[in-house]
Amino acid sequence: MGQSLLLASFVLGLQLSKLFLSCPSQFRKIDHFGFDENLTFQQRYLIADQHWKKDNGPILFYTGNEGDITWFCNNTGFMWDVAEELSAMLVFAEHRYYGESLPFGNESFSDSKHLNYLTSEQALADFAVLIEYLKENIVGARFSPVIAIGGSYGGMLAAWFRMKYPHVVVGALAASAPIWQFGNLVPCGTYFSIVTNDFKKSGKGCSESIRNSWSAINRLSSTDAGLQWLSSTFHLCSPLKNLRDAAMLKNWLSETWINLAMVDYPYKADFLQPLPAWPIQVVCKFLTDPSLLDKPLLQNVFQAVNVYYNYSGEASCFDMSQTATKNLGQMGWYYQVCTEMVMPMCTDGVNDMFEPQKWDFDALSKECFRLWGVRPRPSWVLSMYGGKNISSHSNIVFSNGGLDPWSAGGVTQNISDSLVAIVIPDGAHHLDLRSRNPCDPKSVQQARALEIHYMKQWIEKARHNH
Amino acid sequence: MGQSLLLASFVLGLQLSKLFLSCPSQFRKIDHFGFDENLTFQQRYLIADQHWKKDNGPILFYTGNEGDITWFCNNTGFMWDVAEELSAMLVFAEHRYYGESLPFGNESFSDSKHLNYLTSEQALADFAVLIEYLKENIVGARFSPVIAIGGSYGGMLAAWFRMKYPHVVVGALAASAPIWQFGNLVPCGTYFSIVTNDFKKSGKGCSESIRNSWSAINRLSSTDAGLQWLSSTFHLCSPLKNLRDAAMLKNWLSETWINLAMVDYPYKADFLQPLPAWPIQVVCKFLTDPSLLDKPLLQNVFQAVNVYYNYSGEASCFDMSQTATKNLGQMGWYYQVCTEMVMPMCTDGVNDMFEPQKWDFDALSKECFRLWGVRPRPSWVLSMYGGKNISSHSNIVFSNGGLDPWSAGGVTQNISDSLVAIVIPDGAHHLDLRSRNPCDPKSVQQARALEIHYMKQWIEKARHNH
Repeated sequence: MGQSLLLASFVLGLQLSKLFLSCPSQFRKIDHFGFDENLTFQQRYLIADQHWKKDNGPILFYTGNEGDITWFCNNTGFMWDVAEELSAMLVFAEHRYYGESLPFGNESFSDSKHLNYLTSEQALADFAVLIEYLKENIVGARFSPVIAIGGSYGGMLAAWFRMKYPHVVVGALAASAPIWQFGNLVPCGTYFSIVTNDFKKSGKGCSESIRNSWSAINRLSSTDAGLQWLSSTFHLCSPLKNLRDAAMLKNWLSETWINLAMVDYPYKADFLQPLPAWPIQVVCKFLTDPSLLDKPLLQNVFQAVNVYYNYSGEASCFDMSQTATKNLGQMGWYYQVCTEMVMPMCTDGVNDMFEPQKWDFDALSKECFRLWGVRPRPSWVLSMYGGKNISSHSNIVFSNGGLDPWSAGGVTQNISDSLVAIVIPDGAHHLDLRSRNPCDPKSVQQARALEIHYMKQWIEKARHNH
Repeated sequence: MGQSLLLASFVLGLQLSKLFLSCPSQFRKIDHFGFDENLTFQQRYLIADQHWKKDNGPILFYTGNEGDITWFCNNTGFMWDVAEELSAMLVFAEHRYYGESLPFGNESFSDSKHLNYLTSEQALADFAVLIEYLKENIVGARFSPVIAIGGSYGGMLAAWFRMKYPHVVVGALAASAPIWQFGNLVPCGTYFSIVTNDFKKSGKGCSESIRNSWSAINRLSSTDAGLQWLSSTFHLCSPLKNLRDAAMLKNWLSETWINLAMVDYPYKADFLQPLPAWPIQVVCKFLTDPSLLDKPLLQNVFQAVNVYYNYSGEASCFDMSQTATKNLGQMGWYYQVCTEMVMPMCTDGVNDMFEPQKWDFDALSKECFRLWGVRPRPSWVLSMYGGKNISSHSNIVFSNGGLDPWSAGGVTQNISDSLVAIVIPDGAHHLDLRSRNPCDPKSVQQARALEIHYMKQWIEKARHNH
């Protein structure tokens, strides 16, 4: 059903896009914050209004994050599930520099000059101007209360949107939004200890097997024969040639474990990859004996990652550069990490199952300068969005899953009556934003009910104020 | 006394400036909102801490507006007057592109590329980063509650600063801040009808004389002899040659009446120009008979403007390009008017004493493009700062003077318990920010008392929260 609604939404989206074409000043400005660059670009967005009450019924506005908006639309079933109950219109807005919303087309990523307008501030301004446009141009929407909804980076945007543009959105649902994974607001290691915990809980010997795998790889990668063995055992498309390649293998494995922690959903799903229910439990079935010798241990590790990369059974070899869906815009996100989105991370191998690695800002900065000619500004996001000092804001629900590593940087305790934290102990990365499912744990059902309760409250209050 | 404190402040300011020099990453970014331009500039600010309680006493932070910060510092005696009572540190921060805070030195105004970083958003970010720097680097200031204070455009900045950076300032005093003089939030003619009212109340026949002066000038400027007569009668440095010059004369006179309305203070003062107490009453003494023939009427008008331009008695001729103190940065402000600060104004000659003139956005846009190659975006300030929809913010006092034309675009009624309007019926442009004076009307004394009451409340609450 979500699918058929979605098709309808595309049609309406296209119609509005045509409306845009007849009104060129309504294109988005490439630079909201300066007047020298006066070019515009077309921002894509999707609309579904089947359940919308045309007399100023509410609008649920998805603040698109680092990827193709249609993919987020397809993975945010919660909004489709509640549209009828709230008589709401759904809008999914694509984030600039992702999907089809490329300010300079194919040139968008060519250099730091073209990338200069890829910031969260510009994206929020896009959303604000888009909402104003919709309210002016959709009959009956002029006084519609708008609620921002987003997950992950999109959840940070939803929260920041309410903080910076409270005149545009009456409230925000920020799902799995690590708005505190910056500066030294939270310990840099918690993220990885949550990943580790997920594996520890999902099978005996599981996290220990992974912890032991790193030195096994190190030993094997010290010889050519070992490198060859690793390449063939892990079905790598490009064989490992040296220690640097072996380090890539370890990174690729680490990312795999992290991604599994993010998508450890209670039912078969296809978010980052097609996966079975509770995929970490499935993975851990292969990792029960951490005391094995190097080769059998790593053969088991291969069986484990094979669950993640080859659940469909179609992969012939594994490409280490691709750890998740291609719907995410890796290049754009890496630029954002190199500028605003500096999230300190570290491992110690004790509280987590990873090789110890300190947070190394200088290395990041150097790499960013090499890649894009830019330097990250780690304190800017704190100056802009307030870090932990956000109590004067209102009407934001922060939801976090206990299984989700990103909950490490999330708001997991109430800040005030209207800055509310909801923790979903059995939830992975924004499980609450997914479609209702018979296998949903009670905790996510309760979370969604509470989220709807707050949304209704915001809508009611907006109606009263109006 | 204000003067000697000021001298002390300069010394401390210089010391801190030296501290900056030894810590180059603390220079202000020229572009907070993009990462391609990574240059910095030196932002000037002044500090006075004679009365500051070093154990996290409050900081009163003047959000500098379109001019030399030392001039604003000298005209904001209120802050000096309350420093002791609040045990407060005073900081006056210069706005980028004004005074000595020029991002590209002499090149700052050379073209739209160099002017690209002159926006209110960049200025607010400068203030936020400066405050963070001060709190980190001044011993005992780490938890100092900071209150933003500003007048006029600086008052808009103070209000917007609290709205956008509530984690940086606990409250704001926005004096004579016309935050609603945008879009169609207020009628475009009120501003001029307030000016007119000031003259009407200050002397019989006064506003009528001015209203009649325009057609008198029009008649005289239709002949060469008339133009010559006008040039010599008004002691113009450059004689009028044609109708365009005559239009300039009318503009110059209009601006003079407007400026007089802004500085109609109850005592001798030197803000835009050195002037006697209640200058409009002095001016109106020359404008008692509106029924005079053209030449005697205009000779009286000259006597009237002579009060404004030549109270010191030192002017030998009048330069129509200069209507106020040179401490204001005309060029920068005109660029801001050509980009963000689009404030619709109009006259009808009936509710005001001016020649009728409709608001002409297209003419402004054309002129802006001719001058700077930029186009104004009249709706951006509304999208950014919320227009009249600001009720979700808190801790802002908006003060306005009943005599001040800018009160037309100001907040003159309470919006909530913590968005408070104070009207000073006998006050001109931010009279409340000036030093206490024996001639102060009761209304401004009461206003200041209320402002101090709210500031104490904000400080108390911040201390409690901390």
